[in-house]
Amino acid sequence: MIPESLIKELSQPGETKLVLLVLDGLGGLPIDGLTEMEKANTPNLDDLTKRSICGLTDSVSIGVTPGSGPGHLGLFGYDPLKYEIGRGVLEALGQGLILSPNDLASRGNFATKDKNGIIVDRRAGRIPTEENKKLIAFLRENISKIDNVEIILDSGREHRFVAIFRGKNLEADIKDADPQKEGLPAVPAYPLSDGSKYAADIINRFIEKVNELLSNQKKANTILMRGFAKLPKIPSMKELFKIKPAAIATYPMYRGLARLVGMEILETGETIKDEFDTLKDNFDKYDFFFVHIKKTDSFGEDGNFPKKVEIIEEVDRLIPTLLELKPDVLVITGDHSTPSILKSHSWHPNPILLYSRYERVDDVKHFSEREFAKGGLGRFLAQNILLLMLANGLRLKKFGA
Amino acid sequence: MIPESLIKELSQPGETKLVLLVLDGLGGLPIDGLTEMEKANTPNLDDLTKRSICGLTDSVSIGVTPGSGPGHLGLFGYDPLKYEIGRGVLEALGQGLILSPNDLASRGNFATKDKNGIIVDRRAGRIPTEENKKLIAFLRENISKIDNVEIILDSGREHRFVAIFRGKNLEADIKDADPQKEGLPAVPAYPLSDGSKYAADIINRFIEKVNELLSNQKKANTILMRGFAKLPKIPSMKELFKIKPAAIATYPMYRGLARLVGMEILETGETIKDEFDTLKDNFDKYDFFFVHIKKTDSFGEDGNFPKKVEIIEEVDRLIPTLLELKPDVLVITGDHSTPSILKSHSWHPNPILLYSRYERVDDVKHFSEREFAKGGLGRFLAQNILLLMLANGLRLKKFGA
Repeated sequence: MIPESLIKELSQPGETKLVLLVLDGLGGLPIDGLTEMEKANTPNLDDLTKRSICGLTDSVSIGVTPGSGPGHLGLFGYDPLKYEIGRGVLEALGQGLILSPNDLASRGNFATKDKNGIIVDRRAGRIPTEENKKLIAFLRENISKIDNVEIILDSGREHRFVAIFRGKNLEADIKDADPQKEGLPAVPAYPLSDGSKYAADIINRFIEKVNELLSNQKKANTILMRGFAKLPKIPSMKELFKIKPAAIATYPMYRGLARLVGMEILETGETIKDEFDTLKDNFDKYDFFFVHIKKTDSFGEDGNFPKKVEIIEEVDRLIPTLLELKPDVLVITGDHSTPSILKSHSWHPNPILLYSRYERVDDVKHFSEREFAKGGLGRFLAQNILLLMLANGLRLKKFGA
Repeated sequence: MIPESLIKELSQPGETKLVLLVLDGLGGLPIDGLTEMEKANTPNLDDLTKRSICGLTDSVSIGVTPGSGPGHLGLFGYDPLKYEIGRGVLEALGQGLILSPNDLASRGNFATKDKNGIIVDRRAGRIPTEENKKLIAFLRENISKIDNVEIILDSGREHRFVAIFRGKNLEADIKDADPQKEGLPAVPAYPLSDGSKYAADIINRFIEKVNELLSNQKKANTILMRGFAKLPKIPSMKELFKIKPAAIATYPMYRGLARLVGMEILETGETIKDEFDTLKDNFDKYDFFFVHIKKTDSFGEDGNFPKKVEIIEEVDRLIPTLLELKPDVLVITGDHSTPSILKSHSWHPNPILLYSRYERVDDVKHFSEREFAKGGLGRFLAQNILLLMLANGLRLKKFGA
């Protein structure tokens, strides 16, 4: 991969329209001889495959299973080993919170401690989400600021919540305020450098206040705070690639990841058709579109092979409406594989299809991981996809004379 | 890619003969379903393909379109991102000038300025090449040295020329003496470090002298100087790879690039047959041959699909004479693709054929980019080709015990 400084030098604006359609967790593994992609009846994707060039990509490195953060950063053209998205930030993005560069984000757990200060349940008996919401509302009413640092709290599921500390001079290299195991005493947030002393102090004062406010609770009478992180300092896609990018995604985390690299987030509905409609409605206004389909991954994670197949078929039926827009460059791929039989993300390479008038169409005929493995693109690092899209959009200058 | 220090350690001299046949801009894109390679009738190359192992290479990185400089450095086994060949140097090489390590090379434009010193035409109305030659002859007569720095001038086409400043302590990090846009005042060469102050001073004194000498000219009454560069400090192929390399090329730039890495430049004629004859005549005297065929690229750049096809066919007819020499290792490839439909270099990977008794011959049967994509070599970085040739020539020692 070429360095970012060179990408900036070579990239140039253009009139071409680029579409990156991501079916989250698209790649799978066979059950009874066929993968989810192979089982799916996909006449439109097969037809497109015949007119495209195909291959496989690795998200991070061969054998490495990526999370959603690195998976998407790679697709957006960034080195996922260089830009790490901390847990707190990812959690905040996942809840749809909008972070500013100075914000310090943290995951929180409601937890139970005994009268000796020993953490006896790190998840407060997995209290119902409704109870969590009430507790967070109560905390919000009573704590809005510590020093000049604004505290923003947001409920998650069961015992989980997110805290954002908004203020100046808050560095994130802080050890978790979490003993990690039950049966051990609570620990304060511990600064790992001079720069993070102030933030650790604010966090610990916050925990103390929460302890006072929750002292009457039976289960949720304390909190653990972990995964302190700030937004990574990352150049925008506009700056790096000279594109005007927009994101269409139904889930907050992917909107958050897209916002992180400077994409405009388009309002859309709940269904895949809504997303395709949003693409159509905005096609004139941007030149790069990231369209994110979540449910291939969700059903893969559930181990629901037939439902994952159905989602691929649902996308297939919408492909003609996408092609009617006549994108100059269209990539269809995944951010990682999510084989139903594994019920989790996996290390398997991602199928990729590239449709452009300037490619050497190969003889792959079916929308299938194994057919794509024989495709003309070969196997390469996902981070290169974006450059390949720019090249096909005639948006990269020649390197050297 | 392994570091140069390790290449030096592993490479060893040998008796084997290696031939790198470069069809410049070989790879293409289909018109009516067939690429230039596929359209060409190539019985000899097809036959050789059947007895070879094939694949695709990227010159610099996936999606990146290389210039001739980086394209060839990669083929010669060097990292094109590490060794940059500045514009001035490339232009000088392209005109067949021979540079020494201390030389500072620069591109020049004849230009027009008005009486207020404003550059009104950066190309002096694209004066005819003949007029350029007269002006350069006149300048040569009147300026041969400034201080102890020798000035070497050479006409290019229309308004272009090359200047070489030959002397000591001339560093190249100098900002162009060119306002880049018309309607702005002329600017002097500006040193970007202390080390280049002396060179900038010489260049500015040169420009002043030229301005005096050209003051009576209507159009070409001044010059712009840009792309200051020196030869990159690059280890020779002999040093790195323990080979005795020779280059056969009809165009000055490629002879210059070959000279840059220490190849012997063999005198040859104008035709492809002349080049193959030169190879035959010198086959005993060297052990590595770079044979450069220019016209596949030239016709690609012209958008002349049928003529590019003809050149491939012309090379095909000469393949038997090459095989009669019984090279131990033969590689046929391109330095970049030049699809006729793009009329320019492109980012598409290069077809590569490797013929050697020590390879796993694959089942590719046709000399075609798309067939090569299914070849046994897979897809890899062009910089590795040279090591692969050495390996097949049994010229690389084992790494580690």
